[in-house]
Amino acid sequence: MTRSLWLATCLSWLPNLCNMDFLRVACAQINLTVGDLAGNAARITDAMAWAEDVQADVLLLPELAITGYPPEDLVLRDGFVTENIATLHRIAAQAGETTTVVGFVDRSGGTVRDDAGHSRVHNAAALLQRGRVRGVYHKVLLPNYGVFDEDRYFALGQVRSALWEVNGVAAGVSVCEDIWVDDGPPADQAAAGADVLLNINGSPYHRGKGEQREAMLADRARAAGVPLVYLNLVGGQDELVFDGQSMVFAADGSILYRAPAFVEEMFWVDVPLPEEGRSGVEATLVSGGDLLEGDPEPPAPSHPQLSDVASVYAALVLGLGDYVRKNGFAGVVIGLSGGIDSALTATIAVDALGPDAVWGITMPSRYSSPGSVEDSRALAKNLGIRFDEISIEPPFTGFIETLGTEWDLTEVDVAEQNLQARSRGAILMALSNKFGGMVVATGNKSEMSVGYATLYGDMAGGYAVLKDCYKTLVYDLARWRNRDGEVIPQATIDKAPSAELRPDQADSDSLPAYDLLDAILERYVEGDASVAEIVKAGFDRETVARVARMVDANEYKRRQAPPGVKITTKALGRDRRLPITNGYREG
Amino acid sequence: MTRSLWLATCLSWLPNLCNMDFLRVACAQINLTVGDLAGNAARITDAMAWAEDVQADVLLLPELAITGYPPEDLVLRDGFVTENIATLHRIAAQAGETTTVVGFVDRSGGTVRDDAGHSRVHNAAALLQRGRVRGVYHKVLLPNYGVFDEDRYFALGQVRSALWEVNGVAAGVSVCEDIWVDDGPPADQAAAGADVLLNINGSPYHRGKGEQREAMLADRARAAGVPLVYLNLVGGQDELVFDGQSMVFAADGSILYRAPAFVEEMFWVDVPLPEEGRSGVEATLVSGGDLLEGDPEPPAPSHPQLSDVASVYAALVLGLGDYVRKNGFAGVVIGLSGGIDSALTATIAVDALGPDAVWGITMPSRYSSPGSVEDSRALAKNLGIRFDEISIEPPFTGFIETLGTEWDLTEVDVAEQNLQARSRGAILMALSNKFGGMVVATGNKSEMSVGYATLYGDMAGGYAVLKDCYKTLVYDLARWRNRDGEVIPQATIDKAPSAELRPDQADSDSLPAYDLLDAILERYVEGDASVAEIVKAGFDRETVARVARMVDANEYKRRQAPPGVKITTKALGRDRRLPITNGYREG
Repeated sequence: MTRSLWLATCLSWLPNLCNMDFLRVACAQINLTVGDLAGNAARITDAMAWAEDVQADVLLLPELAITGYPPEDLVLRDGFVTENIATLHRIAAQAGETTTVVGFVDRSGGTVRDDAGHSRVHNAAALLQRGRVRGVYHKVLLPNYGVFDEDRYFALGQVRSALWEVNGVAAGVSVCEDIWVDDGPPADQAAAGADVLLNINGSPYHRGKGEQREAMLADRARAAGVPLVYLNLVGGQDELVFDGQSMVFAADGSILYRAPAFVEEMFWVDVPLPEEGRSGVEATLVSGGDLLEGDPEPPAPSHPQLSDVASVYAALVLGLGDYVRKNGFAGVVIGLSGGIDSALTATIAVDALGPDAVWGITMPSRYSSPGSVEDSRALAKNLGIRFDEISIEPPFTGFIETLGTEWDLTEVDVAEQNLQARSRGAILMALSNKFGGMVVATGNKSEMSVGYATLYGDMAGGYAVLKDCYKTLVYDLARWRNRDGEVIPQATIDKAPSAELRPDQADSDSLPAYDLLDAILERYVEGDASVAEIVKAGFDRETVARVARMVDANEYKRRQAPPGVKITTKALGRDRRLPITNGYREG
Repeated sequence: MTRSLWLATCLSWLPNLCNMDFLRVACAQINLTVGDLAGNAARITDAMAWAEDVQADVLLLPELAITGYPPEDLVLRDGFVTENIATLHRIAAQAGETTTVVGFVDRSGGTVRDDAGHSRVHNAAALLQRGRVRGVYHKVLLPNYGVFDEDRYFALGQVRSALWEVNGVAAGVSVCEDIWVDDGPPADQAAAGADVLLNINGSPYHRGKGEQREAMLADRARAAGVPLVYLNLVGGQDELVFDGQSMVFAADGSILYRAPAFVEEMFWVDVPLPEEGRSGVEATLVSGGDLLEGDPEPPAPSHPQLSDVASVYAALVLGLGDYVRKNGFAGVVIGLSGGIDSALTATIAVDALGPDAVWGITMPSRYSSPGSVEDSRALAKNLGIRFDEISIEPPFTGFIETLGTEWDLTEVDVAEQNLQARSRGAILMALSNKFGGMVVATGNKSEMSVGYATLYGDMAGGYAVLKDCYKTLVYDLARWRNRDGEVIPQATIDKAPSAELRPDQADSDSLPAYDLLDAILERYVEGDASVAEIVKAGFDRETVARVARMVDANEYKRRQAPPGVKITTKALGRDRRLPITNGYREG
């Protein structure tokens, strides 16, 4: 029986007894760049050539691989959508025997326009084979919560259960969110007779999501009763880090292969197809080739899941590194205070970019402890980075002198404290302007939440890598990083946190102890709990009310803060959109 | 025939011959505050008492009047939604004979939760009468484009054609976006037999929207063949200004009354009801009272529509004023450079807050022209504001001194220029920290688009009132403000724009002429046109490509900019969400 005759039989709605052994699915878990159509196309066609070499039946590439994810308002530009489609056709022209599934932005029917007058487009997956686009799937479920705004950009796909015939196998293709709902398009595709489910993703990291995703996907495969291949993007894009961790599941929900987290990997798996003869199903022919013969190769050993702290650390390294690299900076400049936030920030920067790309600056003032310079110097030595000392006394004195006529200096209050922080911010920015490195801000989520930071001072910078890490997590990360030997000086970890902007200052003068503060913030910020609910959980009413007021009153600072890596379920950025002008007082 | 017997007849699906003359509709075009549930409730119950006094059949209050609009992520807080509903019931308890239509956040069926686990709620209008909530309408069409994110928060209303029986009149109630689509819920309500359409709004201003809205509403009334009352919110909320301009239309689409723009007004109109006997229709009984007898009072004369420039100016005054007032600042601090941006900013601030609340600071350096101080002094005198001179030389010299070991000062480049701007920013912030006024940033949209501004320098401040005004419009606004006599010194209007950060600097050294720049920007930013399309419209390719590159490369600055008043169809804020990391290069 020839292959084509067999296919015709399979496709004629008749039961068939063909027993296919396995589908070789190649996966390109790669790091793309939003907007870089030419660069992304080059990465995609490299992957296609590799998949052809390994004789893959199918190659999966990430959601919106051609544009990068998320392209945000770039998709409102008609010219951008047009170029992305032209890029797709250039890529398709290079498709060979392997069927490539690749994400792109597709135009909708043509006449649909949203209220703002833009052409409505789809978040789509194209199936490419032998030089042509053979089929297109439109994402059905569009996330519009948290960091996602897909209703802003995309029209809903209308065809949930389409199947695609690849070398005699009926494949269901879906995109990201489609698989998060238990009765989503993949369930419909399985019901329609899919032999395998292929799901491409741009799924960003937050703590615990890897485990959550793996459990969900195992359930989906088990419920569908067919194998499931999940391919995720990897890399940093502004506030988001995509963690990869692509996975392949057998029909019983057992995991066949787990790709590494936070790094690129090209891999293929011989996915065993269900033993029983499949019914002939209605499917669009994509490729009429033959499956490989012989026994499937066993999958490589799975990469282990990282521990919670290790995965946060890896996310921070990748998020900062990609922000710096993709925005074309040669390196970074970091103000080192001797405290734990700046020490951890510099360590992450070295792990992301190498010691030659990191420049540490200590900027002492009359209020600095001797330790602030010494501990910073020790850190810089451990990290092997360039280190310089620049006093802020001359500009700070200059400010006090020129402002002398405007007020009588009595005791140092927040105005003078902020002038010190702003002198430091201006020095770092001057070094950035003169030599080109990007300033990395060092603030953590505890400070950013309650506004214990100076706008244009210690908040100055292009990126704030610890912005979504509470202070207690900062300590955990520092200890974890020191697990094989001291990098961050123990003195830095042991000292009481202080901004050192007036004599004998300590964070605890202004804030509750960090373990208490962070426990309240986690409930208030991530949990959206009310003051009353937090009090009910066992916290002091006055403290909770004070923290909530500080969080609400400092929205204006956060709105002018640099972006940082999202690592929680609700980061202080696009994820959390509160009004600045806000009269709500709980009570 | 008693009123109740008559009503029973009207509601029994039988034709009726009752000839009602007019419905007295009261409208509270008021200025509310997001989150201030108690304050908003007080404003609402005041309006209810007034409507009762004037014997109104119906009182309209704005969309989401109880929470203020837009409440953004406050609606993701269960506690906030609960308090808003409790507030509604407290308000309802005070309802008398007048039927009050008021916006609030309603819980959906109870079990619907979105993917992020939040209870889904509705953007709703409640009908209150005699101490009770008599009915609730759920907004059907949810805007999710431009500045709007309503799909993030609200579930879609399912009942489009509900009618409400008020004193024998069948009223259709809808919310904002519902009326912008020509076959939206109001059309269905008219088809179902509505005698009048009532539409409550939180519709923000942009240039030309008043005229667009009025033409659209006239069409809707004409198409429906029944009168239409449109009530809009007024006031500033972060980036948005709601312009009021509530309107009442007769059944033939002619305008009966137009309320003023940008100010509060409580008004009522006796809306003539269609002459022909209305058919009995299915409606939910809200109020079984009687309409007023006698002849309707003729409406007051309509307020004129403002000219384009006058309306922009009014929007800026209201936007800045409300931001300052609602965030609790007693006044503002503004750096006066002698240039037109800061002069116009200070003038707007005085018109918004009064001269006693505005403090002008001139901060000369070695590069300042004599005019920068003199022209600023003349402006301050014209405005009657406090004016002080604070030299930036001491801190600037201090920066150069302390940075001396890091580089050889040769000629002043962008690093030294930015240090001057940042010295000024730090001085203004110090005055703000010491004395409590908010710093107003003075940058315009042309500068903000191409990044011709210093982050943490002239971009420092709580609010940037001209952020959405191109430089050419800034000139138009200044000339318009001077129409009755010189406020902004003519020398300030006449001089060539310069940042004065190095000898003989002019904006034209770095940028195309502003009329050319603004024409390109309008196409690129508001129009989302491609470089090729703009070139086709008659512009020089190299200039267009250079401008587009500058816009794209400076997204990181805009992301850390203060908010400002939206006056165009696409402001540089929530309205325009481009990635910072963006490899897209046209061409």
